[in-house]
This record gives sequence, structure tokens and C-alpha cells, in this order.
Amino acid sequence: MFKVTVIGSGLIGSSWAIAFANAGYDVHIYDRDDTSFANSERYIRQELASLNTSANADEVIQRIKYTASLAEALNGAGYVQESIFETLEAKQEIFSAMDSLVDDDVILASSSSSIPCSAFSEALSHRAQCLIAHPVNPPHLIPLVEMVPAPWTDPNVTEKATALMDDIGQTPVVVSKEIEGFILNRLQGALLNEAWWLYQEGYASVDVIDKCISDGLSHRWAFMGPFQTISHNAPGGLVDYAERFRGFNFGIAQSRSNPTKWDLNAAKNAAAEVDALEKGMGLKDAVAWRNDMLRSFKQWKSNGSES
Amino acid sequence: MFKVTVIGSGLIGSSWAIAFANAGYDVHIYDRDDTSFANSERYIRQELASLNTSANADEVIQRIKYTASLAEALNGAGYVQESIFETLEAKQEIFSAMDSLVDDDVILASSSSSIPCSAFSEALSHRAQCLIAHPVNPPHLIPLVEMVPAPWTDPNVTEKATALMDDIGQTPVVVSKEIEGFILNRLQGALLNEAWWLYQEGYASVDVIDKCISDGLSHRWAFMGPFQTISHNAPGGLVDYAERFRGFNFGIAQSRSNPTKWDLNAAKNAAAEVDALEKGMGLKDAVAWRNDMLRSFKQWKSNGSES
Repeated sequence: MFKVTVIGSGLIGSSWAIAFANAGYDVHIYDRDDTSFANSERYIRQELASLNTSANADEVIQRIKYTASLAEALNGAGYVQESIFETLEAKQEIFSAMDSLVDDDVILASSSSSIPCSAFSEALSHRAQCLIAHPVNPPHLIPLVEMVPAPWTDPNVTEKATALMDDIGQTPVVVSKEIEGFILNRLQGALLNEAWWLYQEGYASVDVIDKCISDGLSHRWAFMGPFQTISHNAPGGLVDYAERFRGFNFGIAQSRSNPTKWDLNAAKNAAAEVDALEKGMGLKDAVAWRNDMLRSFKQWKSNGSES
Repeated sequence: MFKVTVIGSGLIGSSWAIAFANAGYDVHIYDRDDTSFANSERYIRQELASLNTSANADEVIQRIKYTASLAEALNGAGYVQESIFETLEAKQEIFSAMDSLVDDDVILASSSSSIPCSAFSEALSHRAQCLIAHPVNPPHLIPLVEMVPAPWTDPNVTEKATALMDDIGQTPVVVSKEIEGFILNRLQGALLNEAWWLYQEGYASVDVIDKCISDGLSHRWAFMGPFQTISHNAPGGLVDYAERFRGFNFGIAQSRSNPTKWDLNAAKNAAAEVDALEKGMGLKDAVAWRNDMLRSFKQWKSNGSES
């Protein structure tokens, strides 16, 4: 087993470290200064203690090391998962720094959630070794990873990175060609835009909109995606559904053909409504509750349809 | 307990009958001819046998009667759940027929999934008693119901209908004002449009798009809605998220500001991909599998976060 390097010791990087170390890989976490290492280690210890695995949490945590030296972090690595702040400049800077330090064998994957790989890898010597491996936050509890190669990514690199994701228990999907936001965040974004506008325009409260997903649409999406879902919702299946409802859905799209940016005053009001729903528990407790729920849901998924 | 009348003996009407009868209500199912009654009864018996309740399936089914006489169906009813074919003409016709037969006390609710109540109730003598109670298919397994009053709906009618939904174990939400598609189908429609275009344009297969929901976004949406979800995805909460990502989401909206109708050739290809995913099991078996999964998911939801 090769060493895995995680670039960035924030929540996404720390969660990736859990996923890799839990599957048996030695993990080296890099950050440019060591001020965040204590927080990262605390989060990792807490999450490992909560995971329902037979692995001993102490044994797993011993596979995780920290360093503020990029050269040390990359030395001997077979796979790198970059998980730093999401701006084009930050991605360009770190990939350029890595490019000057690595050999021809390592895979350089980015957790970028919307910036395509070609935007920061074109000029690199090792650009054929670069691709996107976009997780869902937090990756140690949510399996899906979008693998998005650039036009110049070596297909063997995509294949190996995908196999690694399978090996650590994630669910990798390979996106056919680059687009800003890839698939997952474009789907979420389209739904968020409609949710935001309906809220801003006074059609429903945050609670009503959120329940339409959590007590409505999610019941089917918990085990099948949107195409499979609609194929059951017309007597003649998916083509029949398209014939019946494409007019309605075209109408929705047309009604939003002159889009506006989310209003930040609406954001303040919506934030107050979310706080009320969460009874003011604060972000840290809310994330701990979310992770408990994600663990429980993952357990349900792994049990399949037994009720 | 008053009698509940279900108008329409198709899948939605039959599912509503299960939800009402299971909660102890006597249910009268009307359809204009009796040819579909046998299918409806077969579906209801099969679903009742699968439900994890202490109620005896035979006892529940004895509360359900069928009739092809609208007058008989409405006689003595306290609540009507119309669930017929979704066209404006069909809704106008049945509501007009009911209007001439009912007194001032009954509630006339429509399962309409997108047509607002004002479109077919304006001219009725009993229009103050009409509203939308839009379920998610199938309502006996998915709790959410959108309550959407017309401008002239008596607020007491909305309140009583909402209380009835609570009483039978559904999760009613009241939409503040009418809009085509209400909340749930506009959210689903916005996501479906983006999914459809990404598929048509060759960015990803049906399987990849579906997994982005079922193995990705659904893990959080299974227990919280989109607003609560994003409030955990930026260090400063929802306002911080809006500041960071509204530009990205505005970009998605702008890229779709010249929408096209779903291509029916793409629908044929997508249908073939769904068939392959389902190993050609066919709609009837697929729906039976879906209902098993929905029952199991509902069980998980009722257990809360215990894992």
C-alpha cells in the first residue's frame, strides 16, 4: 500500500484522512503552517471513536502524520488529495508547487467542488497525472466521489484513482467531460436556486421548503436517483413521463430565464429560520448531530431493504 | 370520525385510501366506472399485508368501499381527496360535479401536482371549501403533503385539512401562496431540468447522475432540507455560504437562461439506461421494490438517529 498525502488540514482534508487511514493507508497531512493540526487531530479522534468499525481508533490514528513541509508530505506518496481553500489562484499555486516536487508516478487529485482541473493544470509538467476527485462533505461519511479528468489526464490515472476510491469504500463516478460545478453541485445548485427564489418571493418558509426535501423527495432519492424515480411515475415509464411532464418542466425553466443573484438580506432571514429549526445549537453541535445522522443513514444503506 | 371520499381509483387514489383507512377512517372510493376497482383492491390488499402495523389488514380493508355513483360517494363525507387524471379540464369537470352535490361542511381537496386550486374552483358555490392537498407518490409511504389554499379558501378549511393530515400520520406543510407546481415539484423540476440537460449534452450517463443523488446529496437530505444542509457547509453558516457560493449558483442559472424542452430521443436512450440499471424488471416489479425500500426508509426515519 502506497502513502496517501492530504493537502490541507481543514474539515475536508481531515475527513479524507479518516477515509484513507480507516481503509489501512498511511496518510500524511500537509498544511503550510501547523496551527490547525490540533483541531484536525481532535476532529479525527472524535470521528474515529464514533465510527462503527472493528478497527481500533488508536491504531488508525497512528497511520496519520502531520507536516508543514510540502516536500516531506509528497515524499514517497502514491496518491495526493488536495483539499485547500477553493479559489482558482490557490489551486494554481499549490499544483504548481507540487508539480516541481513530484515524479511521474504519483496521482494528483483535487477536491475542487466546481473549478475544472484544466483551469489549473494546463501548464504543468505532470498535467497528465492530475484530475478532480470531488467528495461530498464529509467524505468519510458520504460515499460519492466525482472523478473528473481534464482533456489531458492519462486514462490510466483516472482508472487508478477510481480503483483507489473503490478500495477505500467510496462510490466513485466518472464524469464524461468537464463543466463548471461538475454534476453534483450543478444538480444541487439548480435546486438551491429554485429554493432560494421561492423563499425570496414569499411562497414558502425555510421549514416548508426543507421539509419538501427531507420528508418528501428524499424518501425516493435515498435509494434511487431522479431518472429512476420518474421512470416509476408514469404508466409507460420514462418516455411516457417525459411526454407528460416536459411541458411543465420547460415552463419552470422559462419562468427562471431572467435569473437574479441570491439576495443577502434574504440570506439573513433564512439563517434566522435555520437557527430556529436547530434551536440555536450552533455550527459545531449541528455538525456533530449531522455526522451522527449520516452514520445512521450509512448503516441503513448498508443493510439494504431489510426493515 | 367522518367518512373520507377518494375520487379516482388509480394508484394515487388507492394509496390515499390505504393512508386514511389505516388511520381508522371509513373510506369510499369513487370512479366513474367500476373496471379499475379490482386492480385497486388488489394493490391495497398487497400494500396492507406489507405494512408493519399492528392493525389487521382484513379489518382495515373492510373500511374501504367502492362506488361508481358520485352522489353515493359524497353522501355523508367530511373530507374528499380528489385524485383523478391531471388535466385542467378533468379537474374543472369533477369539481363542478361535486359542487352541485355537496353541502357547506365538506372539505374538497385535490391531489393536483401542479395545477393551482384557483384554476378550477373560482366559479364554484363551494369554492371556500376547496384547496390542494398534494401528496408525494405513494402517499401511504411518503409523509409530505403540500397544502395550497386558493385566495378564496376559508382559512378554517386549510386548518382542518392540515389537522386531518397530521391525524393520519402525514407531514403537511402549508404553502403561502399559489404558484404552478407549488414547492415540491418546482424543486424536483429544477433538478430534473439540470439533470436532463447534462445527460442530453453528454456530460454524464443516467447511472452517474442518479448516483450523484442516491449516493451523494440524498445522504444529507434524508434528514434535513437544502437550506439546513448548506448552513453547515461554510464556517460562518448560511449567510457565509450565500456570500461564497451565490456567484457560482448565479452562473449555473445564467448558463440555463435559454432553456430547451427535453428531447424525446434522449428520453428513449435514458429509458434504456434505466432498464439496464433495473435489469429489465419492468414497472410492476420496480414499483414493488420501490415500495419495499420506502417502507424500510420510513422505518429508519421513525427510529431517528439510532444506529
